[in-house]
Amino acid sequence: MTRIEAVLIDWGTTNVRAYGIGADGAILERRVSAHGIRNVPDRQFAAAFDALVGDWRAGAPVPVLMSGMIGSRQGWAEAPYVACPAGLDGLADGLLSVPDRSGVRIVPGVCLGAAATRRDVMRGEEVQCFGALATERIADAILCLPGTHSKWVRMEGGRLVDFATAMTGEAYEVLRRHSILSALMRDEETGATGDSRWFAAGLERSGDPGGLLHHLFSVRADGLFEVVPGEGLADYLSGILIGHEIRSMAGLFPAPRPVLVVGGSGLAAAYRAALSHLEVEARAIDAEKATTSGLFRILSKGRSM
Amino acid sequence: MTRIEAVLIDWGTTNVRAYGIGADGAILERRVSAHGIRNVPDRQFAAAFDALVGDWRAGAPVPVLMSGMIGSRQGWAEAPYVACPAGLDGLADGLLSVPDRSGVRIVPGVCLGAAATRRDVMRGEEVQCFGALATERIADAILCLPGTHSKWVRMEGGRLVDFATAMTGEAYEVLRRHSILSALMRDEETGATGDSRWFAAGLERSGDPGGLLHHLFSVRADGLFEVVPGEGLADYLSGILIGHEIRSMAGLFPAPRPVLVVGGSGLAAAYRAALSHLEVEARAIDAEKATTSGLFRILSKGRSM
Repeated sequence: MTRIEAVLIDWGTTNVRAYGIGADGAILERRVSAHGIRNVPDRQFAAAFDALVGDWRAGAPVPVLMSGMIGSRQGWAEAPYVACPAGLDGLADGLLSVPDRSGVRIVPGVCLGAAATRRDVMRGEEVQCFGALATERIADAILCLPGTHSKWVRMEGGRLVDFATAMTGEAYEVLRRHSILSALMRDEETGATGDSRWFAAGLERSGDPGGLLHHLFSVRADGLFEVVPGEGLADYLSGILIGHEIRSMAGLFPAPRPVLVVGGSGLAAAYRAALSHLEVEARAIDAEKATTSGLFRILSKGRSM
Repeated sequence: MTRIEAVLIDWGTTNVRAYGIGADGAILERRVSAHGIRNVPDRQFAAAFDALVGDWRAGAPVPVLMSGMIGSRQGWAEAPYVACPAGLDGLADGLLSVPDRSGVRIVPGVCLGAAATRRDVMRGEEVQCFGALATERIADAILCLPGTHSKWVRMEGGRLVDFATAMTGEAYEVLRRHSILSALMRDEETGATGDSRWFAAGLERSGDPGGLLHHLFSVRADGLFEVVPGEGLADYLSGILIGHEIRSMAGLFPAPRPVLVVGGSGLAAAYRAALSHLEVEARAIDAEKATTSGLFRILSKGRSM
């Protein structure tokens, strides 16, 4: 059996994904845990780390590279942000070693540069963007990374030059769970399925006059009058929100080529369906491949320095 | 002392306001209670009604007219909706008597007509709109009624011909209390004050490219980088949301004359400041006068039939 030569970890707010890889970057083992940074008791990150991948390093303390919210102020150790335009070298230069485990480092996040008229931040998605360029063998792309905080990213000449975040997933969750809209929804448990006609109806609604705050109320009004059935309201809400995100972001990030949508999950599929509905060409990128390829490239750079 | 000849009640989700009026419509007594329909134990509306105004009717069962969410499915009795274009006569025709107290009636709500391409509903604001026309002695107006669910209304020839709702206040509350944005805010208790420079900064942000979902994330990013201090983030969020509402709604309801903003509260003042900042002419309308004048006119119509 091939030996694990390094460990790559995508450590987010909700979940952790760990990969034991060979010398060539191939994935030998994978583990998923619900110990995202929000779920680590008493912020005992070293203990959670040992529980997750300690056995992979029992024989030899192989190098570990981590990305995501583990490097935030609420995580294990706060890694800096690298400003746009950011390259792989900049990320490798900025690796942060955690204080209490040797050979364990965190990739910095990325922020917009001081010249930008707005502020924005990411942690974890930058790794996937560089990984996607590598697996696709391209240097320029517009990427869409759907999620709680969706990212739209412009890569040029192999560097991450601009990006913007939309709070789409979080807005969906707080409205679905805590607003008056939840009273009419008859799909509280499952939520949006992402493939119904009501999702498409929400995408259409997002193009009407009146703005998002008005369209949100239409979820209630259309529910009251049974224009949309209770079972369809979560999908309708999801379509309205994702439709607004895409219409605004496709304006900020005009794409000459297909938008690369990172993720194979139901959410990424919903985004691809929405982009197609709104006549924006899109293509799927495997999230795991993007993550591991990105982390492996940064690890290789960091090692050679 | 002048005798109470009728009782007018504005019975909303959170609060109830009751007015004992004379034969000429003048307010003789007023009472406020926190027994909005959400806060009435076991839906014992008749008991809550007796506690609120029973003594005003002890001598004689004077007529009572109520408006607001008391007429909703969750209220005392479900009053119908009158479709736009709606006049005072239509509202008076549609009065609903409650089953368990004689002489107590509820004003119907208003919905958009079947010809409209969208659905929308209101309960209570329609009374204020007719009241505002009466006190202002006009027949045409654009009104803005700020609140949990803000209403923009077009009145023409003394009738309510079109309106749209924006879920601005509710979006503000759920985002401030339940989203990641709350972590950075250092004004959880007081919330937005509506008059700071950060409110104005939010209004400006709402005009930038990227859309509302992106601007919501900028509350986090600008907070992280201390472009906006923690004490200013609630005002900043409020400015972003109200700015989006006004920019969209001023497009749907172009006003040749000043927009009439109903309400004297801090929220209505914030809307007037926002409208002024965005160069939309606006004027304040007293909410209590609009409510009681509207209810009194409907009561008079209903009586004469």
